[in-house]
Amino acid sequence: MGLGAVEMRFFSDNAAAAHPRVIAAIAQSNRLDTAYDGDEWSGRLDAAFSDLFETEVRALWVTTGTAANCLALAALCPPHGAILCHRDAHIEHDEAGAPGFYTNGAKLMLLDGPGAKVAPDAVAAAIDRVRKDVHQVQPAALSITNASEYGLAYRASEVAALGDLARQRGLGFHMDGARFANAVASTGDSPADLTWRAGVDALSFGFVKNGGLNAEALILFRTDLADEIAVRRKRAGHLLSKGRMLAAQLLAMLDDDLWLANARAANAAAQAIAAAAGDRLIYPVEANEIFLKVSPEEAAELRRQGFDFYDWGPGEIRLVTSWDQQGEAVERLAAAIAAL
Amino acid sequence: MGLGAVEMRFFSDNAAAAHPRVIAAIAQSNRLDTAYDGDEWSGRLDAAFSDLFETEVRALWVTTGTAANCLALAALCPPHGAILCHRDAHIEHDEAGAPGFYTNGAKLMLLDGPGAKVAPDAVAAAIDRVRKDVHQVQPAALSITNASEYGLAYRASEVAALGDLARQRGLGFHMDGARFANAVASTGDSPADLTWRAGVDALSFGFVKNGGLNAEALILFRTDLADEIAVRRKRAGHLLSKGRMLAAQLLAMLDDDLWLANARAANAAAQAIAAAAGDRLIYPVEANEIFLKVSPEEAAELRRQGFDFYDWGPGEIRLVTSWDQQGEAVERLAAAIAAL
Amino acid sequence: MGLGAVEMRFFSDNAAAAHPRVIAAIAQSNRLDTAYDGDEWSGRLDAAFSDLFETEVRALWVTTGTAANCLALAALCPPHGAILCHRDAHIEHDEAGAPGFYTNGAKLMLLDGPGAKVAPDAVAAAIDRVRKDVHQVQPAALSITNASEYGLAYRASEVAALGDLARQRGLGFHMDGARFANAVASTGDSPADLTWRAGVDALSFGFVKNGGLNAEALILFRTDLADEIAVRRKRAGHLLSKGRMLAAQLLAMLDDDLWLANARAANAAAQAIAAAAGDRLIYPVEANEIFLKVSPEEAAELRRQGFDFYDWGPGEIRLVTSWDQQGEAVERLAAAIAAL
Amino acid sequence: MGLGAVEMRFFSDNAAAAHPRVIAAIAQSNRLDTAYDGDEWSGRLDAAFSDLFETEVRALWVTTGTAANCLALAALCPPHGAILCHRDAHIEHDEAGAPGFYTNGAKLMLLDGPGAKVAPDAVAAAIDRVRKDVHQVQPAALSITNASEYGLAYRASEVAALGDLARQRGLGFHMDGARFANAVASTGDSPADLTWRAGVDALSFGFVKNGGLNAEALILFRTDLADEIAVRRKRAGHLLSKGRMLAAQLLAMLDDDLWLANARAANAAAQAIAAAAGDRLIYPVEANEIFLKVSPEEAAELRRQGFDFYDWGPGEIRLVTSWDQQGEAVERLAAAIAAL
Repeated sequence: MGLGAVEMRFFSDNAAAAHPRVIAAIAQSNRLDTAYDGDEWSGRLDAAFSDLFETEVRALWVTTGTAANCLALAALCPPHGAILCHRDAHIEHDEAGAPGFYTNGAKLMLLDGPGAKVAPDAVAAAIDRVRKDVHQVQPAALSITNASEYGLAYRASEVAALGDLARQRGLGFHMDGARFANAVASTGDSPADLTWRAGVDALSFGFVKNGGLNAEALILFRTDLADEIAVRRKRAGHLLSKGRMLAAQLLAMLDDDLWLANARAANAAAQAIAAAAGDRLIYPVEANEIFLKVSPEEAAELRRQGFDFYDWGPGEIRLVTSWDQQGEAVERLAAAIAAL
Repeated sequence: MGLGAVEMRFFSDNAAAAHPRVIAAIAQSNRLDTAYDGDEWSGRLDAAFSDLFETEVRALWVTTGTAANCLALAALCPPHGAILCHRDAHIEHDEAGAPGFYTNGAKLMLLDGPGAKVAPDAVAAAIDRVRKDVHQVQPAALSITNASEYGLAYRASEVAALGDLARQRGLGFHMDGARFANAVASTGDSPADLTWRAGVDALSFGFVKNGGLNAEALILFRTDLADEIAVRRKRAGHLLSKGRMLAAQLLAMLDDDLWLANARAANAAAQAIAAAAGDRLIYPVEANEIFLKVSPEEAAELRRQGFDFYDWGPGEIRLVTSWDQQGEAVERLAAAIAAL
Repeated sequence: MGLGAVEMRFFSDNAAAAHPRVIAAIAQSNRLDTAYDGDEWSGRLDAAFSDLFETEVRALWVTTGTAANCLALAALCPPHGAILCHRDAHIEHDEAGAPGFYTNGAKLMLLDGPGAKVAPDAVAAAIDRVRKDVHQVQPAALSITNASEYGLAYRASEVAALGDLARQRGLGFHMDGARFANAVASTGDSPADLTWRAGVDALSFGFVKNGGLNAEALILFRTDLADEIAVRRKRAGHLLSKGRMLAAQLLAMLDDDLWLANARAANAAAQAIAAAAGDRLIYPVEANEIFLKVSPEEAAELRRQGFDFYDWGPGEIRLVTSWDQQGEAVERLAAAIAAL
Repeated sequence: MGLGAVEMRFFSDNAAAAHPRVIAAIAQSNRLDTAYDGDEWSGRLDAAFSDLFETEVRALWVTTGTAANCLALAALCPPHGAILCHRDAHIEHDEAGAPGFYTNGAKLMLLDGPGAKVAPDAVAAAIDRVRKDVHQVQPAALSITNASEYGLAYRASEVAALGDLARQRGLGFHMDGARFANAVASTGDSPADLTWRAGVDALSFGFVKNGGLNAEALILFRTDLADEIAVRRKRAGHLLSKGRMLAAQLLAMLDDDLWLANARAANAAAQAIAAAAGDRLIYPVEANEIFLKVSPEEAAELRRQGFDFYDWGPGEIRLVTSWDQQGEAVERLAAAIAAL
C-alpha cells in the first residue's frame, strides 16, 4: 500500500536511481569548460582518491565497470597471457568477452571456489598445472571480485594472502570492486588494507550501483600504468568530452563519505531480509546481495505480491538491495519471505 | 565587460555546457528502473529516430563519437579490410587508433581533398590503385565526416554520388556526423536526404557538441547490423547500466527539434564571425567552425583580449562556436577580428 | 641391438622423419616457377582433394596444424563468439592461445567427456547454459579432434550426430584432423563420411605427423569460405613464396594413398604395443597413441632400456607410434611393457 | 635456343629454386628427432648467427618474411603505437595488413623518400607532426627495408643516422632484410655495421629469395625480446614441428657464406642488365632489382622474345635476378634491352 512497482524491484542495484547529490554535482559542473579530462574536477581526482586510500594513486573516470576492469587487465596481461579468475567472475560471465577484446585475445583461466571467492591454493594449483613452455598460455594476472558475485566479502587478510602469492608468481593483481563500497562497509577494513597494502595493483571502484549515475573510477596503485591506460581509454572510445561531469559525480560520492553511507544503507537492507530468510540463505550475506532457496511456487507467490527479482537457477533466487531501497519495501519483503 | 573567461572560449564545442532541457531529462529519468537498455526511454529511440529519418532505423546510444564511429566501422569492415577516409578525418587523426582497435587491425586508406571533403574520383582512384589479390588490403568501407573537419557541409547530392560509388564498389558507407546537426542546419537538406537516401548505411549522429551531456546516437539504416553492434557495444564496455539517462538525453534533444535549433544558433554565431573575417577565411563557413589566416602577433592580440582558441598550423587558427555562445562574446570576437 | 636412441623414441609423431617420397617431391618441384600459390602443384590441390572427398572442396596448404585450425576457426566464429571444444583439445591446451589471436578474442567454451571426445548432449547442455543476451558470449562454432587427443576415433555416425546438432544450433563445425589419417585407417569410414557428409565445414587435415615434412592441408567443404581464408592466410604470414614445395608434398602423400598406408603402419605399431599392455591401457587404442598406467619406477625402467616417451600425469605415460617406427623397436617396447 | 620459358623469368626472386645444398641439408636432417625447435640444428642457430654478426644474438627460424617482420614489430610496438615506414614498404604494401594483425591494430605511419628509402629528416618531421597527447597515435618503432623495395642499398652510415634518431626518440628499430644479403654484397659493409652497430634492434634476414627453400631468420640484437617473440611465434602458428629442417637450411646457407655468394651472383646478373639499360634506369641498381622505363610496345617485344617480368606502372617494368639465373638468359635479356 503506497508502494509502486518500482520500489519493489530487487533485481539489480544497477537499476537504482542516482543520488540527488550526484545529480546536483552534474548540474553544477555543467558549464563551458575544458574538454575531456583537462578540467578542474578531473584534475582533483588523483588527490581525492589518494586521500581515501592513504597513498599516492592515479584515478581515471570511466563509464562502466566493464571498461574499468578490462582497461586494467589489458595493462596487466599481454595478449599471449592468461588471467586467473573465478568461474563465476563477472569478467568471465557477464561482459560479452570484453577481456578478450581489450587484451587482444588473452585467456581467462577459470578457478573454482565457494561463493565465487578465490583461495590461494586454487590459484597456486592452477598455475602449477601450466607447463612452462611456449605451447601453453602462461598466467600473467589474477583478478578477484570484492564483494564477490555471490555477495561475499574478502577480508584484508584474505586479499593479502592472494597478493603475496601474486607477487611470488609474478602476477598482476586486479580487483573488480563493482561493490567495493559494500565490502568496505561490511568488513570494516579500510580501503587501503583491502587493496594496495594487500598487494592489489588496480581497482575497479564501482559507484554506479551505489548512487552514481554513470561514473566509475579506475584506481591505479601502480601509478606507472596510468599513462598507458589513459591512452587505451581514449582508444576504446571511453574518453568522454565532458568528463568534468563524470569527475564531479565521483567527487560528490567521496564528499562526506557518501559512498560509504550508501553502501551501509544497502547492506542494512540486505541484513534485514537475510534475518527473515533463515536457512533459506545459500550464502552468508556480507554485502547487498541475498541468494535464497525458494521453490518456483514460492517465487511466484512473492511476485504475485509485487516483488521483482531474478531466478538464479532451479529453486534459487537472487535479491539485491540498493542504497535507496525504501524501508517499507524491505520490511514487506522480509515479512513475505518469513511467511512463505 | 561582464563576460567571464569561460564565455570567451572558442576552442571547442566539446567544451560547451549541456542544454538545461537535457539536464532536466536526466533528472526526470533518474529513478529505479530497468538496467542497461531495457527501459522505456531506450525503447522509444528506434521510433523517434525512424520518425526523424522517415524510414525504419535502429538507434543505439553510446557515450562518445569515437565509440559510435568505430562500432559502425567494425560492423562494415573486416579485420583484413580497409576503410577509405580523408587524411584529416577524425577517425585517422584524433581517435588514438580506435578504428584499429575496434576492427581488430583494419587499415585506414587515406584520401586527399580540399577542406577534408572526399570526392568520388578520389575514392575511385584509391580503389583502382589496389591490386585485386591477397597481398594488398582490399577496401571494404568508406567513411566521410559531415560537416567535415574543416567545417564544410556535404550536400545531399554530393553524398549520393559517393553512395552510388560505394554501392558499385561493394563498400559499406559510414558517416561521422559529430556535427551532422550543423550540416543539416546549413544545407537545409533533410536528414533522410543526407543519409540513407544517399546510400549511407550508418550514421554517428552527434549530440554532445550540440547541447547533449554524454549521449551520442548510432543510427543504423542497415537495420540488420543492429544486433551485432549491440553485442559489440557491450563487449567494448559501452553498455551503461543506467542507459535510460542517455536515452532521455537523446529524446530531449529530438523533442521540438532542439538539436536543430541548437545547431542553427551555433551556425549563426559562426556566420557572424565569418562576416567579419573577410579574406582571412581559409574555407567557406558552412557549419560552426571557422579557420582563419591570422599571424602569430594577431593571434596573441586576440588572446590578450581574452579570447581562447586553437592554433591550427603556422599562421592559422581555428574558432568553434557553440549552441550557447552568448551573442555578446560573438559580437566582440567579430569586432576584434575585423579590427586586426 | 642395432637400434639407436633415435629409433626408440616414442614421444611424438611430430618428431618422425618425412617420407622419402615427400622429400623426392620437394626436390622435383625445386625449380624456378611462379611464387606463392600460383604454381601448377598448388593448382592441382583442389581437384586432388575433391577426388579424395568425393565432393567439391577447396584445399589450402599451410605449414602447421595450429594455423590450419585457427584460420578455419576465425572464419567460422566472430571475435565476439565462442567455440565449443573439449577441455583437453589441442586448440585449448597446446596452441599458446592461437585461437584467441586468430579470432581476435573469441572464447573457447570447454566441454568434458571421456577420452577427449565430445558428445552431443554435452554440447547441447553447454549451449543451453548460455543466456541469449548481449552479456554472455554466444556459441558460434564447434571444434572436435579426430582422432582425439587421447587416441580415440570418432565414427562417422558420431560425427554426424554432432553435425546435426551444429546445424540445428547454427554452429560452424570444424574438425582438427592432425591425426585424421589414423582415424580413417582405424574406423574404415570414408573421408567423406567422416566429414562433410556428417556436417563438417572445415577440416585441418594433418600430414606432418604422418610422413609429410611441413605441409598440412586445410580442407574447406564450405567452399565459400576459401577466399576469405586465403586472405587471412596471407595476413598471418602463412603464404609461403615457394608454396609449390608444400603442394608437392601433399600431392605425394595423396599419390597411391601414401597417407593411408602410413597411418595404417603407425596404427599397427600402436596395436602391437597395446596388445602387450593389457589392463594398463587407460583408453582403447584407436589410432597411434597409447596411454598407460605405469608407475614411476616402471617408467624409469623403460627409460633405462632406452625408450623415450612423455609422462602424462601421475602414474601415466603416453606413447606415440610413427609411420616409420621400425618393427624391431616396437617389438622390443611391447616386450618390455609386458615384462614390467 | 636451349633456354626454356622458366629460365627467362625475371619477375621475382621469390620464384627461384632452392640451392642444392639447401635441399641436401633438408634430406640430411630428415630423421626422427626432437619436435619444434628442441633439435640440435635449431640449437646451433644462435651461435652461428652470433658469429656472423660479431655479437650475441638470438636467431629464430620462421617460414616467411611477413612473419619475421610482424613478429619483430609486435614486440617493438604496442597496439596503440605507430610504426614509421616508407609508403612503399613491403609491410605497408604487400603483406595484407599483417602488421595490423600481429600488433593488434598498431598504425603504419607512412613516409616519403626516393627509391623507397627513408631519410632521418623525414622520420623526424613525421614524429614532430604528432601531438603528444592521448588523441593521436604515438610513434613507437621505425622499420626500414635494406635493400629497399626499389633495389637501393642503405650504407652502414645511413642506417646509423637513422639508428641515432630512433634512440633519441625512443623508437624500436627494425630492418626488413628480405634482400639483406644483396645489400651486404652491394655495399661491402659488414652485417654488424649494417645492423646492431647502427642501432638496429631486430632484423628479418631473408634467405628464401636467395637460395633457401622456406626458412627465414629473425635476428634479435635485443636478445631480451627473444622469449616473448618465441611465444608469439607459437601463437601465430609458426612453430613448425619439424623445425630442424628449417634450421638445417639456414645453417647450410651460412656454411661457407653461401648466402653471400648467392647474393653476389644475383647482383652481378642485375649489373649486367643495368649496363645494357643505360638511361632507361629509373633507380641506380644496388641489389638484384632493375626498374626500367620501357614503353608498352617495347615491353610487349621483350615478352614476345620470351622474357617474363612485371609491369610496374605506366611505361615502367621491374626485372629481378636470382642467384641461379643462367648467364645465357641474362646475356640475352641485356642484349634485348640494348636493342630496343
